[in-house]
Amino acid sequence: MRLVSVDEVRAAAERIRGVAVRTPLLACPWAERPERTLWLKPENLQPIGAFKVRGAWNALAVLPESERAAGVVAFSSGNHAQAVAYAARAGGVPAVIVIDDTAPALKIAATKELGAEVVLAPPAERAAVARALAAERGATLIPPYDHPNVIAGQGTAGLEIAEDRPDVASVLVPISGGGLASGIAVAVKALCPKAAVFGVEPELAADTRDSFKAGELVRWPSEDRVRTSADGLRAEPSELTFAHLTALLDDVLTVSEAEIRSTVGELAARSRIVAEPSGAVAPAAYLHRTDVLPPGPCVAVVSGGNIDPALFVDILRERTHS
Amino acid sequence: MRLVSVDEVRAAAERIRGVAVRTPLLACPWAERPERTLWLKPENLQPIGAFKVRGAWNALAVLPESERAAGVVAFSSGNHAQAVAYAARAGGVPAVIVIDDTAPALKIAATKELGAEVVLAPPAERAAVARALAAERGATLIPPYDHPNVIAGQGTAGLEIAEDRPDVASVLVPISGGGLASGIAVAVKALCPKAAVFGVEPELAADTRDSFKAGELVRWPSEDRVRTSADGLRAEPSELTFAHLTALLDDVLTVSEAEIRSTVGELAARSRIVAEPSGAVAPAAYLHRTDVLPPGPCVAVVSGGNIDPALFVDILRERTHS
Repeated sequence: MRLVSVDEVRAAAERIRGVAVRTPLLACPWAERPERTLWLKPENLQPIGAFKVRGAWNALAVLPESERAAGVVAFSSGNHAQAVAYAARAGGVPAVIVIDDTAPALKIAATKELGAEVVLAPPAERAAVARALAAERGATLIPPYDHPNVIAGQGTAGLEIAEDRPDVASVLVPISGGGLASGIAVAVKALCPKAAVFGVEPELAADTRDSFKAGELVRWPSEDRVRTSADGLRAEPSELTFAHLTALLDDVLTVSEAEIRSTVGELAARSRIVAEPSGAVAPAAYLHRTDVLPPGPCVAVVSGGNIDPALFVDILRERTHS
Repeated sequence: MRLVSVDEVRAAAERIRGVAVRTPLLACPWAERPERTLWLKPENLQPIGAFKVRGAWNALAVLPESERAAGVVAFSSGNHAQAVAYAARAGGVPAVIVIDDTAPALKIAATKELGAEVVLAPPAERAAVARALAAERGATLIPPYDHPNVIAGQGTAGLEIAEDRPDVASVLVPISGGGLASGIAVAVKALCPKAAVFGVEPELAADTRDSFKAGELVRWPSEDRVRTSADGLRAEPSELTFAHLTALLDDVLTVSEAEIRSTVGELAARSRIVAEPSGAVAPAAYLHRTDVLPPGPCVAVVSGGNIDPALFVDILRERTHS
């Protein structure tokens, strides 16, 4: 299977300039260890609160004018939906978004606010519903991860990491469908070949860890994957993203629900950023899986910040009282 | 009185590269109005959670080796203390920090964690205590705002605003001692002469608004200035910073305590950043003082994120329940 090249990621970087935020790396004096330093890549600062705007914009930007006019359709566990809605509005393209009926109300409301038509569907059916809508309207389906243009767009975050910290020793990236981890691994392995790249999953949705060990896609039932609080990490890799992950990742690490929760609190109190549970898994791995990380600068990607407000309050209260 | 020049700000920008974060401007789709867009300059993302690291590092970096060895002393309502401690540690310089005995425990603990010696003093006496300590030890006093090198360092944030948004129509900056507003106004007025630059204060510490109207420094008693929840904005300008403000600012705006609180909540929920009350006054002015702002892109500086955790939880709970 043909993997995305670093040149495709570079082309994507040209396209997204001025639409996606060029996020800085944030030093974390509070998480320094004698042998290792933590740098956050805060993708929660993107306009819709997640890295997804990179891939969505890249996929939309390459569409010919005639296809744009017919509109786009997307399905998503949440952040991709907002990203396609944002990119479509920026490009003046009509958008229909199919969202899980289990997604937080905040994500659904935010997608509507961006001018998109929203259709709710059960997680297991959303892909089929989206395909049917696209066929019916002659619109283009923008998949959340299973497309080279989406992977190349997400990979621009990896280009920026290599540019800002060419001495990076390890990069930690959350895995759900695997688009972000695939794209970042393409860029980092091409530009910083000595750096280790680790995928990170919640223990409760560790299908990719199992697949990586088995050398082939191992499927977890969706009722298992929905148990994690990291609602952005409940999807599973496609053949395309899994081909990238097996070729490029050094390993897949997992973190517990308690580690995810406490890291959301640490990031708010010590790095002054709001991360959603999915966005906290990579820094959680830095804090709790130190045995496998090489010494030197470690970059952890904070993939998003669209946390349910009540959950965020709960986590901060626990931290204040402990 | 000689004002800091844009060339001094440019020289400071060279010095702080790699120490201070090059913060991006963050688009806020949630705060778009037909005639105006909001861009946040998130200085809460600096290593110590506030813009102060810019000025502190610039002031330290210019010291000759012999003076560095004798150490530095600083006094501060909080964030400047941490900034000097951070810069001193980075430069291997001993630091003594005099902090208000009314400052949040978080700020005091964070300063000690950075390796500095901490001395507590009542707000009205901290300057005198710091001067006495400096004299006693032969150390250099790094003032929080009353120095050209500190003003030039803070001004680097203004250079970055002009670089990222040369079409900026207005810039909103909090005022306490006035170092940040002075430095940013120097850079913005030099590079974007059409842009309006507004200082912003809490209504409960609006001494600079009164001074600006009167054309001379009007002093508020410190017992009045400490009433605001914006504990970083309780200081007052010096002759030097006031000279910059009168020469360069278009006006000084004020915001209420309720507006500050609700804006802290908005910034967390909609822009996924943790702002302290002092850091929220500029975006609060964008949201609530629209009558005086010119149309076009508005940049609001979020000066810091070191909020008391219990206060942050209170504000988020209010927002969730309303």
